[in-house]
Amino acid sequence: MDGYELLLNHFKKDVKLSPKEEKLIADSFSIMKFKKNEIILSAGEISSHMRFVVEGCLKSFYLNEDGKEHIVHFGIEGWWINDLYSYFTATPSTQYIQAIENGIFLQAPKEKLDELFDSSHSIERFFRLKFQNAYVAFIDRTVNSLSKTAEVRYAEFCEKYPEIEQCVPQYTLASYLGITPEFLSVLRKRQLKRRS
Amino acid sequence: MDGYELLLNHFKKDVKLSPKEEKLIADSFSIMKFKKNEIILSAGEISSHMRFVVEGCLKSFYLNEDGKEHIVHFGIEGWWINDLYSYFTATPSTQYIQAIENGIFLQAPKEKLDELFDSSHSIERFFRLKFQNAYVAFIDRTVNSLSKTAEVRYAEFCEKYPEIEQCVPQYTLASYLGITPEFLSVLRKRQLKRRS
Repeated sequence: MDGYELLLNHFKKDVKLSPKEEKLIADSFSIMKFKKNEIILSAGEISSHMRFVVEGCLKSFYLNEDGKEHIVHFGIEGWWINDLYSYFTATPSTQYIQAIENGIFLQAPKEKLDELFDSSHSIERFFRLKFQNAYVAFIDRTVNSLSKTAEVRYAEFCEKYPEIEQCVPQYTLASYLGITPEFLSVLRKRQLKRRS
Repeated sequence: MDGYELLLNHFKKDVKLSPKEEKLIADSFSIMKFKKNEIILSAGEISSHMRFVVEGCLKSFYLNEDGKEHIVHFGIEGWWINDLYSYFTATPSTQYIQAIENGIFLQAPKEKLDELFDSSHSIERFFRLKFQNAYVAFIDRTVNSLSKTAEVRYAEFCEKYPEIEQCVPQYTLASYLGITPEFLSVLRKRQLKRRS
């Protein structure tokens, strides 16, 4: 399946699209290849594109006062990755987006997306739903996760996103979970024992 | 101005509405009066309505482990108030919504709102924008505010929402700012001194 097919199928999970709408979407998104470790968005830059991952794996993170990386999200095939706060408010991003491995995404500039909204109710519907999901995911990530132990969060992560666990280095996953790589290793062993 | 006029003008700040769309909106929302201290939504209940405040003042809050109230949002004339997480996910609310004073809101059940989305691109656009704003407001409230002192947060609050400062009791505003009423009183005096 090529990138555009993946993107259109992704839309069609939530909304119906006419051939004309499919063409509008395809014409608005362009293919971007990225290399392992490449920085897609830097803190301080305004995010002016919506990005859909076709292949590969990316992470978004911010640096704390000591320069330590804190993972906010991952982006894998079929996911969107962005600093939505920066995108919505046109203010400098507080996050970095960086590639974990080589890959491809499709991106549309904000003006193109606004044109898509003007020309299609279905496309506007699709993003209304995506933004609702982003709101929910953000609360899950920041608020609800505070009330769970690292062990529970790790187990839930593996269940929800088995494909990410495969492609992400252990120290990156540890940063996402807010624990040390050593403690993640302990949790991993415990979980393997429980499964066997 | 009656409640429906206020609601329609609120929509028309962001989108154009035909007379047919105005009627659809007015037919979907019903008037609800509330009394001071009335609970509009309880923690544990699923939020199944979208609510627009026409008159009066409300607060949304959660209770911490010691039963202490933590204010999340206020709702005054021309604002929406909800536990959007509960509304989007149809899961039990973690928050309460309670009236601070007598008032009126307009509310639409979720099914009606979904019908509105189906029948009007403009209405779908309006809520796409509102949900973007909710995402931004949530981050402002939880993440960005952590990096500011109580004094700065109080000054910003007074500047942004002078009308709320008038109607909210001091201990409620203190809870919103995450400080004691005594410390709020100190901040208030300092600010008055600076202004004079």
